[in-house]
Amino acid sequence: MNPSHLSGAVLVLGSGLLGASIGLGLRARGLDVVLSDPSPSAQAVAVDIGAGRAFVPAQELHPELVVVAAPPDVSAQVVAGALTQYPSAVVVDIASVKGAILAQLEAMDSLAPGALARYVGTHPMAGRERSGPVAARGELFNSMPWVLCPSEFSSAHAIKVAHSLAIDLDAVVFRFTAEEHDAAVALVSHLPQVMASLVASRLAESPSAALSLSGNGLRDVTRIAASDPALWVQILGANAPKLLEIMQGVRTDLDRLINTLSAPTAPGARLDLAQLMTEGNEGQSRIPGKHGGPPQQYSWLTVLVDDKPGQIAKLLTEIGEIGVNVEDLRMDHSAGLQVGMVEISVLPAKRVALVEELTARGWKVLQ
Amino acid sequence: MNPSHLSGAVLVLGSGLLGASIGLGLRARGLDVVLSDPSPSAQAVAVDIGAGRAFVPAQELHPELVVVAAPPDVSAQVVAGALTQYPSAVVVDIASVKGAILAQLEAMDSLAPGALARYVGTHPMAGRERSGPVAARGELFNSMPWVLCPSEFSSAHAIKVAHSLAIDLDAVVFRFTAEEHDAAVALVSHLPQVMASLVASRLAESPSAALSLSGNGLRDVTRIAASDPALWVQILGANAPKLLEIMQGVRTDLDRLINTLSAPTAPGARLDLAQLMTEGNEGQSRIPGKHGGPPQQYSWLTVLVDDKPGQIAKLLTEIGEIGVNVEDLRMDHSAGLQVGMVEISVLPAKRVALVEELTARGWKVLQ
Repeated sequence: MNPSHLSGAVLVLGSGLLGASIGLGLRARGLDVVLSDPSPSAQAVAVDIGAGRAFVPAQELHPELVVVAAPPDVSAQVVAGALTQYPSAVVVDIASVKGAILAQLEAMDSLAPGALARYVGTHPMAGRERSGPVAARGELFNSMPWVLCPSEFSSAHAIKVAHSLAIDLDAVVFRFTAEEHDAAVALVSHLPQVMASLVASRLAESPSAALSLSGNGLRDVTRIAASDPALWVQILGANAPKLLEIMQGVRTDLDRLINTLSAPTAPGARLDLAQLMTEGNEGQSRIPGKHGGPPQQYSWLTVLVDDKPGQIAKLLTEIGEIGVNVEDLRMDHSAGLQVGMVEISVLPAKRVALVEELTARGWKVLQ
Repeated sequence: MNPSHLSGAVLVLGSGLLGASIGLGLRARGLDVVLSDPSPSAQAVAVDIGAGRAFVPAQELHPELVVVAAPPDVSAQVVAGALTQYPSAVVVDIASVKGAILAQLEAMDSLAPGALARYVGTHPMAGRERSGPVAARGELFNSMPWVLCPSEFSSAHAIKVAHSLAIDLDAVVFRFTAEEHDAAVALVSHLPQVMASLVASRLAESPSAALSLSGNGLRDVTRIAASDPALWVQILGANAPKLLEIMQGVRTDLDRLINTLSAPTAPGARLDLAQLMTEGNEGQSRIPGKHGGPPQQYSWLTVLVDDKPGQIAKLLTEIGEIGVNVEDLRMDHSAGLQVGMVEISVLPAKRVALVEELTARGWKVLQ
């Protein structure tokens, strides 16, 4: 057990997926974690899985840190309550939009002067398709980005405590202003979310025969359309101005596309389509690769395997024997037949030798 | 070597990725394949990799089947030429849009009466991120959908030959009218393509700091934005009417979203956002799963692994020993640290026992 960077008790307000996961992670560091949730059953489940001990209202508590893990809508209120009730604690929230919460806090008359020195807005960029404390896990934040957004009021001590929380949970710390953060997540998180939902909602009333032709392209584009509406309504609402700006850019491009499709043989139509596709190429190539490395630094190869237990293991065991590290792996879904294609990415320098060696061992490698 | 369902020689017009892959696959069945490409170098490469023998203009040829593997723009012309030049051959094309090509053929005065009885439009739904004959592989169509779109003129014999081609290449055969096909691919292929490009093009001029927060959501939504502009300009142009209809629906939804984001505290705004998300949930849940099975029939679990050679192999070997089949596998990209999360999907009935057994063997399983 590695020691914590924190020392005092940590009060976690909210014991859903994220709150309970934070509790589990901090408990694993040996910290005293106190859990509180407006839902008695959510709190009880979180306590049961070992995420901390139950908050007892009558008991005096002097937490070093209060983590507000409440829904975005009520985070500012809960932060203000915690700043008032625990006048020596640092308070952080973990909502996925930061500017709106800071603005609400700044507008509150009820806060003691200087109280905001003890507040740091943060955003751990981790989540799961399932929600609630049952889905919690202490390793949820492991290697994931955790953005700290100190305000102009935040003290150096408060920032240090917030930083320790993220480090304790093995996250990778980023530091942005609330404004920069909200613009960034509007682009890399909220934009793909609404676009995935817009695509998927077109499928809602389509003929099933058409859907039988679905491939990995459609699956990938719509995967996050399965996200929780209740949470996303709050996120999109809270970051409306930043997202609006981006969506207006999308509408301009979409209108141009619609005009082009309305007259596909008109002069310039082909050029318009080519421009959309090329801009897409350029944007896509800017997304960083695995481990924050430069994009597209890996080479892919495809191997045919039977779809039965042990085949992929056998393949990967042999790749391990050959001494090559698999950087990424995708299974290609196929329609109707029980054979699979496994796409494997490796360092470009390793590729040729790997293909040769696998082929020599009898694998069907499709370069 | 399994015998072919075809018997005579096959002439493949076009030796890019798809034409050369068809040649390789048919050669593996022992068929005589003749390749022709307007680009002498593409033709030479395809011949070199064993996709067939070179077409010799002076030599007499009586193919049973001519496969037109030309770009969508010129497919109708090449089909017409082949129908005229080889009056006893069946002719198929493999372009990804079918209605426009059929309409062009119907409008041609140069075709002999009845010639269209020997034509069947088809669309093998397989491709790769790389193009050209160098990327070709005989197994490209293995387990992938191959849509046959016979017209009202197509003879039973022509349909049978087209069917044999798809079966010879181990594809899964679907039968649609050209109209149904074009509507289906507009929805499941062209819509996600343009939406991915619209998202990715927003990234083209964004600050790199924002992109450092990119997660799997953005990666998945934009992956196909890396596709070839030259090819997609032809596809989108040829299917403009069908795609236009869908994109107008998207614009209606987008306009509603933009209105909502412009006044996020107005009455009904929350409901509007919830509706978009919920429709997205519904549409996403209709996409069929692996092997054309019902959607969402698998359960997921996540295992933490060190990012070094052999670890995933070890994990999968042990899952094989436990006797569970891995239905799908994803690696979770993490920022900055050298640890990986492997998400594995299995039959729901197998999940609990697998988690127990893996945990007992010392794996960190995050349910």
